[in-house]
Amino acid sequence: MNINFEPYYAVIFTSIQKESIEGYSEMAEKMEVLAKQQPGFLGMDSARNNIGITVSYWDSLESIKNWKQQTDHLKAQLKGKQDWYHWYNVKICKVEREYEFSV
Amino acid sequence: MNINFEPYYAVIFTSIQKESIEGYSEMAEKMEVLAKQQPGFLGMDSARNNIGITVSYWDSLESIKNWKQQTDHLKAQLKGKQDWYHWYNVKICKVEREYEFSV
Repeated sequence: MNINFEPYYAVIFTSIQKESIEGYSEMAEKMEVLAKQQPGFLGMDSARNNIGITVSYWDSLESIKNWKQQTDHLKAQLKGKQDWYHWYNVKICKVEREYEFSV
Repeated sequence: MNINFEPYYAVIFTSIQKESIEGYSEMAEKMEVLAKQQPGFLGMDSARNNIGITVSYWDSLESIKNWKQQTDHLKAQLKGKQDWYHWYNVKICKVEREYEFSV
């Protein structure tokens, strides 16, 4: 139990892509670079098989809101809806506890 | 905005596996079947590339605690530490907001 645990936030982005996703990986890379420059960004993990899961971590709801409204990110979101995603779901979560294992 | 949004919980399990993971996929399958039978289980998503991300959803912290302490799951956790994982991290989160897109 971490006594000094500082709550922070996770955005769970789950998605199913279309068959043809031209331009997607360049955009995803660009958005990752951009997210890392955002105030309040803490980290990010991504994996994809049938479903894609990207979890990004932020210091506050305010930082998440600012990232959602960032101009280039807004363009990417629009492009994602038009061209790349069949479906996606976004969950804004408060991280309440955490533990880790390492060999 | 979902006005009747009922808060629920997400467990974000992020992991890096060892090279040899004999017996892992059978166990993962077994644990998925078992989790789905647990009281309070709401859903689960998984993907793996370099890193594995599994997010499971639960109705309460109590249900998460019960699942963590379920006997067969405890054995699987031990086996995971001994044989399959270099590293893992578990985050217990409260889902505060959610939105979705679908074509």
